[in-house]
Amino acid sequence: MAIRLRDRVYIADLLGKGEVGKEYTVAGWVDTVRAHGGIVFIILRDRTGKMQLVVKRNVSKESWKIAKSLNPESVIAARGALVESKAALGGRELVVSELVVYSEAEPLPIDIRDYRKTTLAKRLDWRFLDLRNPRNMLIFLVEAEMARAARDWFYEHGFVEIFTPKIVGAATEGGAEVFSLVYFDKPAFLAQSPQLYKQMGVISGFERVFEIGPAFRAEPHHTTRHLTEYTSLDLEMGFIDSFEDVMDTVEGVVRAMVRRVIEVYGDRIREYFPDARLEEPKEIPRITIREAYKLLESAGVPVEWGEDLSSEAERRLGEIIEREYGSPMVFVTEYPWRARPFYTMRKPDDPEWTLSFDLLFRGLEIATGGQREHRYEVLLRQIEEKGLNPKSFEWYLNMFRFGAPPHGGAGIGLERVVMQLLGLGNIREARLLPRDPERLVP
Amino acid sequence: MAIRLRDRVYIADLLGKGEVGKEYTVAGWVDTVRAHGGIVFIILRDRTGKMQLVVKRNVSKESWKIAKSLNPESVIAARGALVESKAALGGRELVVSELVVYSEAEPLPIDIRDYRKTTLAKRLDWRFLDLRNPRNMLIFLVEAEMARAARDWFYEHGFVEIFTPKIVGAATEGGAEVFSLVYFDKPAFLAQSPQLYKQMGVISGFERVFEIGPAFRAEPHHTTRHLTEYTSLDLEMGFIDSFEDVMDTVEGVVRAMVRRVIEVYGDRIREYFPDARLEEPKEIPRITIREAYKLLESAGVPVEWGEDLSSEAERRLGEIIEREYGSPMVFVTEYPWRARPFYTMRKPDDPEWTLSFDLLFRGLEIATGGQREHRYEVLLRQIEEKGLNPKSFEWYLNMFRFGAPPHGGAGIGLERVVMQLLGLGNIREARLLPRDPERLVP
Repeated sequence: MAIRLRDRVYIADLLGKGEVGKEYTVAGWVDTVRAHGGIVFIILRDRTGKMQLVVKRNVSKESWKIAKSLNPESVIAARGALVESKAALGGRELVVSELVVYSEAEPLPIDIRDYRKTTLAKRLDWRFLDLRNPRNMLIFLVEAEMARAARDWFYEHGFVEIFTPKIVGAATEGGAEVFSLVYFDKPAFLAQSPQLYKQMGVISGFERVFEIGPAFRAEPHHTTRHLTEYTSLDLEMGFIDSFEDVMDTVEGVVRAMVRRVIEVYGDRIREYFPDARLEEPKEIPRITIREAYKLLESAGVPVEWGEDLSSEAERRLGEIIEREYGSPMVFVTEYPWRARPFYTMRKPDDPEWTLSFDLLFRGLEIATGGQREHRYEVLLRQIEEKGLNPKSFEWYLNMFRFGAPPHGGAGIGLERVVMQLLGLGNIREARLLPRDPERLVP
Repeated sequence: MAIRLRDRVYIADLLGKGEVGKEYTVAGWVDTVRAHGGIVFIILRDRTGKMQLVVKRNVSKESWKIAKSLNPESVIAARGALVESKAALGGRELVVSELVVYSEAEPLPIDIRDYRKTTLAKRLDWRFLDLRNPRNMLIFLVEAEMARAARDWFYEHGFVEIFTPKIVGAATEGGAEVFSLVYFDKPAFLAQSPQLYKQMGVISGFERVFEIGPAFRAEPHHTTRHLTEYTSLDLEMGFIDSFEDVMDTVEGVVRAMVRRVIEVYGDRIREYFPDARLEEPKEIPRITIREAYKLLESAGVPVEWGEDLSSEAERRLGEIIEREYGSPMVFVTEYPWRARPFYTMRKPDDPEWTLSFDLLFRGLEIATGGQREHRYEVLLRQIEEKGLNPKSFEWYLNMFRFGAPPHGGAGIGLERVVMQLLGLGNIREARLLPRDPERLVP
């Protein structure tokens, strides 16, 4: 009987629930092969785990011949009887009666077992092989689970998913860090964030919207924290009393993401990532940036009042908060107006500061947000004050002339959350196929 | 006591579960205002529904003064007692003791009640107002629900979400319909699909992957079916016996999407979209393109054997299938090799045809897919046969040298599914902010 892949069972299911004596079909990648006279032992790997296949000359000569000459990472399927085996992984093995090879592998260009032997750059060149290492694959299972947990949280709290344009007519955030393209005969840009569009979502009447999608930043810098293309979890909510409501939302969603990952992958993460930070923050402390300046100054870290925090200051602040509050996360609030974009609402009694926040996780910004200015006249002044041309924002400004509720929102960098949770040293590890100034392929 | 938006309840909840005599806070947009001596009647709208507010001079003179001069679409919050009222929507109304205006609306530039009075182009220019019409908003609630249903189906069937690059070094599908940009000093393109990357997902060992994200096509044509940026539901699965397995998957996910939308929004769709096609296809017929040619020829529709179907032929085929099979959907299979991309697997016994399919819904292609060629030597020949340069696909070709399982997948156009389900005349209606050769703003 020919092997049919429809009959295939996953290894984890077979080891867990298979009946000894019954015939099963398995399929996957050859992890290792070892020949011993008339027997070939294959460790087969699929995405659920590994198990031993025993291919005996006296059971199936044809299968034995094929098995003998298999290279690791070849793709096969096998059919055979499940038997008990003290020596085998999981206490069971399959005695193969039929074997099919779908794809023979050549000798590998990188060592996928000991991935540390290969530079990150080369690992990324051979990403499809690099991911065959369960530790590296786990990063992306965690990332997918986080996105899922975030969406579940958004649905529960009445947020509607929107799909906004990535090709835009004007740079959203201003500044030079924008990719430009030619859109037929017109100049256009890649969206740095869905900022203006998610505000539109609220003002249109969806009230609460979210989007998980790509954001593009033409960052010319090489750091371990920046990507030119990343996955942004964006949310925006109307009818808020203050930017505290937005922080409550960000806190809710980030905690849900961390909680879910611990539930689903906690054990596997502990196995592969000794530097992971696997606890759900109970309540995230909130301090103003002025308090942050003071804490940093007391610790001997130079800061400039009225300016943004440097990444070094953020790192040190993370350590201080960890020590003082026992929390890996902290909201820093009320950033100076000069360091925030035009749409930020300013503090009514002290307009040099804004109703905004960053969320730091182990000393790295993972989210940024705040209340938005929804009063037309004020917004217009703020655009002018930032040296931007109101003409470029005409459609956006118009939204505030026909009924805009008080609202706010935030953007969360998915790869950064994963990086900080797992304790990865470089954000490129947390992106399937990272883009930086040099890397455009694969 | 000042109004706090935290206390706000949604209108649908208040009409459904509010206690008569109790005080409540509501917020939203002013739908209509009508003054009658000492009383102002406001119909307030939030995203859950509409209700009447009664503002009486003898209850709150201040509120009455404000209410009198409100323009429709202004954003307000109101606090007051819930009372029974036979004349009001839902049999209840709120007698207002306090009223706050967050945003006063100017007279509107378009008629949002009778949206048909405005051209689609102008509606899109004022999209944030256009969406205040519940019919237009419903389109995007349906779209969000479809994406959610698709993901639920993917999760249940073991698909892992991936986030693939949208800035790419080579045009995925070949051809001229690609946007180019300058990536620092290198030429780059916007991904026409995640095709090569989702195949990488399978070959890396995820086995089954999906992505719901933007796809970009530099289509210079103006049609009612094309967008230059759309949301693509992409899936790819390994260890398949044949492309029938992929069709089973597409059928599963599309049926789940339609089923969910009917469950959640069926009644509201029937109210607003008389042309909607609200039934879940039981089983989707599958016919080869050769059978399709014959059916079309018998119906007097000119076809060219060995060529793709024209959009007019697809439309007519949809009618024929509807009549013959009673199904709004049909899989057309085995498209000619000359009409499919290089990565398509060809029929082993008849290589002029391929193991591919399109899914038509009411005569419009909503999905396309098939089995992919996973044999290195064959794939290399196919790239050359299509006149492409294997050098440009080096990283992709390498994937097939180190263990690639038989696999296949498909891409589903989200906006097209929505358009055909609701019976919209133009795909721009199904995209929040559509992009076409002329439209780049908002």
